[in-house]
Amino acid sequence: MIQPPPAQPGMHEDEVDTPALILDLDAFEANLETAIRLLESTGVRLRPHAKTHKSAVIAHLQMKHGAVGQCVQKVAEAEALVWAGVPDVLVSNEVVGAAKLARLAALANVARISVCADSARQVKNLQVAAAAAEVNLGVLVEINAGGNRCGVAPGAEAVDLARQIAASQNLSFEGLQAYHGSAQHLRSPEQRRQAIAAASDSARCTIDLLLEQGLECRTIAGAGTGTFINEVESGIYNELQLGSYIFMDADYARNLDETGAPVSLFQQSLFVLTTVMSAPRTGVAVVDAGHKAAPTDSGLPLVWQRPGVEYIDASDEHGALKIAEGTQPLKEGQKIRLVPAHCDPTVDRYDWYVCVRNSRVECLWPITARGAMT
Amino acid sequence: MIQPPPAQPGMHEDEVDTPALILDLDAFEANLETAIRLLESTGVRLRPHAKTHKSAVIAHLQMKHGAVGQCVQKVAEAEALVWAGVPDVLVSNEVVGAAKLARLAALANVARISVCADSARQVKNLQVAAAAAEVNLGVLVEINAGGNRCGVAPGAEAVDLARQIAASQNLSFEGLQAYHGSAQHLRSPEQRRQAIAAASDSARCTIDLLLEQGLECRTIAGAGTGTFINEVESGIYNELQLGSYIFMDADYARNLDETGAPVSLFQQSLFVLTTVMSAPRTGVAVVDAGHKAAPTDSGLPLVWQRPGVEYIDASDEHGALKIAEGTQPLKEGQKIRLVPAHCDPTVDRYDWYVCVRNSRVECLWPITARGAMT
Repeated sequence: MIQPPPAQPGMHEDEVDTPALILDLDAFEANLETAIRLLESTGVRLRPHAKTHKSAVIAHLQMKHGAVGQCVQKVAEAEALVWAGVPDVLVSNEVVGAAKLARLAALANVARISVCADSARQVKNLQVAAAAAEVNLGVLVEINAGGNRCGVAPGAEAVDLARQIAASQNLSFEGLQAYHGSAQHLRSPEQRRQAIAAASDSARCTIDLLLEQGLECRTIAGAGTGTFINEVESGIYNELQLGSYIFMDADYARNLDETGAPVSLFQQSLFVLTTVMSAPRTGVAVVDAGHKAAPTDSGLPLVWQRPGVEYIDASDEHGALKIAEGTQPLKEGQKIRLVPAHCDPTVDRYDWYVCVRNSRVECLWPITARGAMT
Repeated sequence: MIQPPPAQPGMHEDEVDTPALILDLDAFEANLETAIRLLESTGVRLRPHAKTHKSAVIAHLQMKHGAVGQCVQKVAEAEALVWAGVPDVLVSNEVVGAAKLARLAALANVARISVCADSARQVKNLQVAAAAAEVNLGVLVEINAGGNRCGVAPGAEAVDLARQIAASQNLSFEGLQAYHGSAQHLRSPEQRRQAIAAASDSARCTIDLLLEQGLECRTIAGAGTGTFINEVESGIYNELQLGSYIFMDADYARNLDETGAPVSLFQQSLFVLTTVMSAPRTGVAVVDAGHKAAPTDSGLPLVWQRPGVEYIDASDEHGALKIAEGTQPLKEGQKIRLVPAHCDPTVDRYDWYVCVRNSRVECLWPITARGAMT
């Protein structure tokens, strides 16, 4: 069952039922503009990651603001976007299993679809599925750019795979997927620079070997909100897969810039609105958002703009707040904004964005690909 | 959007698309029977917690197996159950806010509804909502039984609240909610026994004070899968709120019995089925279930019955498996069962239970209250 929206347009934010996922439209729109401004005149394309927002509306807004398409991690996410009119989707991930491959190939009748591969078997199966559907799929070879997750070793192994793709009748070799996920959350700018310099070197050596074989990379893809400046500076990457930049979260707020201050390129636009449901003892308040409402894989959420109030413990449906001595106590029924620890899994908990401007609900956006895991 | 089911009845488990939530029906049914057997002849009622299963089908099965009703934490969960015919629901939690209270009261036209309170203001608002809907609500006073979350102090404060409830025209004083959540996960039986002994003492002293005021407790409620044996032994509790016993999880499997072995009353029946999507290096496999598919608030999931294979890292959509030297390598496309770290938030990630018996899909059950957070 889809949950009914917890608000109606026109309401004040304080009237929204909780827990609710709040999107501050001014901050969100500023983030869209900032990304465009930072990338214009670099020649580098932006293909934002929909694993963060899971929303066809936001995908279309990003493309209106210059994005060339969308990335997803799952076929079910690609379906949600393509069925809502997104014309160009890259599955920045491996797709395994005949049922999933058939679904992926079918989408290529409606939109431009590309996908990653890191084994000969995957390429073979992609060709079978694309041939059966009589479509063409773009394929990027995923190399291990330092994250040690998926991806073939840079160099000869990647070249073998690219040749296999290029020789497959229904596949086109698109280039390299060289995403370094764990680098996004390295705290110092020097750590991030070094990690992406190494990733760029891996990509560069592979590009050179591919050129020797007559294989040109249309796309060198990667980057996230934490490192994209480094990928731009590399001169190697030409397509960036930022996701979190539109929302931000408590974890990204821990990344530091050259001065040792938190990186402040983008504004916090995403919040979990919660209600004080119990204030049983001095110094304590309990809110109605626990880890089902604000996942804790990257730590606890932060309390937004209430000095002296700290979110100190999450259970399934309760969040415990500690109120420092000398701080105004919180009252039952009070609404509080939390900054999610990690925006991606938080969004995936909700059916609706409650979009707010100047504390007024302006609109409701469905989270089209909520729960799209297959 | 609801996700389509990842399986069809009759399929072999290996054909199920992934990630999928698998319910092993033999183990699940054995757990239903075990709970009945352990409680029969104790005179203690079972009111299982639907925050775990979020399912009207499972609620009805539990009641067929002797449960007196269901607990929930959220009004939206109560709605999902009552609308599906569950006749008796306790919201084992405080409900704050006029919109939520109106929804709660409306349910009392269709089913027997009770709720907890831990402040005079809540009781006042419950009476207003119940009067407006012309219904009666049962109300339990929640006492702080040691978990230091919600709940008034045991003793005089609880008695004041009970008197206020009893004096409210549309409310009935039902008894005490004395749940000690954190005691469920204390690892040694002695720690759990002590925690519940203290909780029982708090309840007993409050019951005695209430009796002096002529207020009888029909219900002394609490307990979970980790401690319910202790609540039964207390002679104080007469209604138990077990949730996880039907499924179990990796966290509960860390509780120990008197011999120092894991408590083995209930069987593991809940699994996340996942596929190996990449096997890029020796000793490594990557599966398609990350923390969006198997939340990590209580640690990482465990690999089921594959010695030498360990789930060592979760990102949003990827799980990294380490394969010990000398272990048969995993192949792309292989399906693997994971034991969720924590069953409650895991269930809430899915739209369907894929119910399996002897490796065959027998049926699909919708997760009726998935995402029901308000």
